[in-house]
Amino acid sequence: MQSSRPGATLGTMQDVWEFYRADLHDVDVQIPKHVDSGVPLINQVALYILTSGGKRIRPLLLMIASRLAGVEPPGDRAVMLAGAIEYIHAATLLHDDVLDEAALRRGKDPAHALWGNRATILVGDYLYTKAVCLAVTLGSVEVDSILAHACRIMAEGEALQLLHCGDLSLTDEAYLKIVECKTAALFSAACRLGGVVGGASWEEQEALARFGRHLGIAYQVADDTLDYVADQGRLGKALGKDLSEGKITLPLLHLLRAAGASERALVETVIRDGQASPAQLREILDLMQTYGSIDHAMDVARRHIAAAQHNLDGFEPSLHRQALTAVAEYVVSRDH
Amino acid sequence: MQSSRPGATLGTMQDVWEFYRADLHDVDVQIPKHVDSGVPLINQVALYILTSGGKRIRPLLLMIASRLAGVEPPGDRAVMLAGAIEYIHAATLLHDDVLDEAALRRGKDPAHALWGNRATILVGDYLYTKAVCLAVTLGSVEVDSILAHACRIMAEGEALQLLHCGDLSLTDEAYLKIVECKTAALFSAACRLGGVVGGASWEEQEALARFGRHLGIAYQVADDTLDYVADQGRLGKALGKDLSEGKITLPLLHLLRAAGASERALVETVIRDGQASPAQLREILDLMQTYGSIDHAMDVARRHIAAAQHNLDGFEPSLHRQALTAVAEYVVSRDH
Repeated sequence: MQSSRPGATLGTMQDVWEFYRADLHDVDVQIPKHVDSGVPLINQVALYILTSGGKRIRPLLLMIASRLAGVEPPGDRAVMLAGAIEYIHAATLLHDDVLDEAALRRGKDPAHALWGNRATILVGDYLYTKAVCLAVTLGSVEVDSILAHACRIMAEGEALQLLHCGDLSLTDEAYLKIVECKTAALFSAACRLGGVVGGASWEEQEALARFGRHLGIAYQVADDTLDYVADQGRLGKALGKDLSEGKITLPLLHLLRAAGASERALVETVIRDGQASPAQLREILDLMQTYGSIDHAMDVARRHIAAAQHNLDGFEPSLHRQALTAVAEYVVSRDH
Repeated sequence: MQSSRPGATLGTMQDVWEFYRADLHDVDVQIPKHVDSGVPLINQVALYILTSGGKRIRPLLLMIASRLAGVEPPGDRAVMLAGAIEYIHAATLLHDDVLDEAALRRGKDPAHALWGNRATILVGDYLYTKAVCLAVTLGSVEVDSILAHACRIMAEGEALQLLHCGDLSLTDEAYLKIVECKTAALFSAACRLGGVVGGASWEEQEALARFGRHLGIAYQVADDTLDYVADQGRLGKALGKDLSEGKITLPLLHLLRAAGASERALVETVIRDGQASPAQLREILDLMQTYGSIDHAMDVARRHIAAAQHNLDGFEPSLHRQALTAVAEYVVSRDH
């Protein structure tokens, strides 16, 4: 963390990255240090995924929350937990890769796909268990419990997503439940754990957990939605990928409700077939614009950001509180 | 547990099953009770694997160890942990299935294989995390730590096995290391956890952990070896399966060392090709008999059983100590 100047403010995400650079550096040093399996293959795959340019937004939230609580300096405990949270995030990415790859059913070199799947499942397992091992070294049942709970909810979220794969009758509520389990549980745990190691009161821990939960929901909704408003090259790819995976997201659900019968039939056909021509993709995107599906989805994300911010009211104004606000704003911005 | 009659002994595995019937019943009631995911698919697959006729040998060891320690009655804590241990065992079976299925590369209905893989990975993840969740409810960092450590070692073992798949230069030591990680770590954790909840001293916990480790090694070595001495129908299948998976086990390693050049070439060819004719399988089995490969492997298993038993010396003679001895003898018997 940079020393604060009088009158300094943290208004943008850029300010935040800058202000917590030292904290994030500590986390970045910490993360590869504990990838110490006796099996070179595990270390190799784990380091690959852990150093492949993730933004470290979960560790960042943990560090900020620990400083916001501020009773105790975060120190090694916060850094270690921030690393553990990133291990868990990486583990879910690895298992997601296997699940998504399976879903795509693309023709691939079997040997490569095979090695890839086996190694990724194993390394995912390793990172999960390693994260729990790191956490238990802190000797806090509270910490263990928060982490175990989050992991269980995330596993449920993955299963819910599988269950509703290609399910056109999915409701907004069911979609948001998946998002809450898959993504928001870990955001919430990161914020709460920051509070715990920072010495926050129970009420503050609860507020941080709720902040993280709403933030995580908004993050995932925005992520699912902003794919559709990226540049044209990426757009087709993102849209096509979601469709072929049967991944039903909020703008698509809105479109299905808003569209007329023939338009709806087009969308349904494309989703059921799991593939679409460029003309069909273009038409779906145009329909989303026409019916305001993107705006609707981003409104939902922004409402969760507002709900998240509300939970910071109980904290004294500080640069750390400003930082959480800035992260929240960033999550629903087009730069995210 | 049955009330003990004066002069009763627990000499056989049958006696042990009978004596701890009530404990195992409690575990059997406990196991499905916590399969309470909000996602029916998870519960369905989890219950299927958890109730598919496993012998509950790990839960049994935990219950016996907790009664051997005997300072505190095992009660709910032991039963809960015994269930958690079985969840972890089931999780590894599920992830193993995916890994083995991939390795076999057998032509299967892709949709079925796909659904199978995705569900099994997810349910494996769920059972892992649920086990940790159950454990943390006990509020003991010691328990969390033992369980997390065991899970991490098991993940390493899986990776070691993958690394040495089809590796004909594998040493006995490397094979035993895989077995120690994959199988013995959980046996060891089960015995140690029994000691912990039973109120055992640190020295007793260490002795129980070592007992479990040696027992687990012997269990897996015997399991890998006895496949080769089963009846002829099963034999070819087991041998063929191990070979096609590139699974190198102790009797095969012995044969490779003991055989002459031309015999060795036959074995190497069969293993490299990952398939063998019935005549080739028959010849490999005959060679194993000729060179005493089965006896050699079972001698290794029995040495680990002796080492396991040695760790019971510090405990007062009791029915529970007799029971652990009986389990150990059973593990290297042909009935196992």
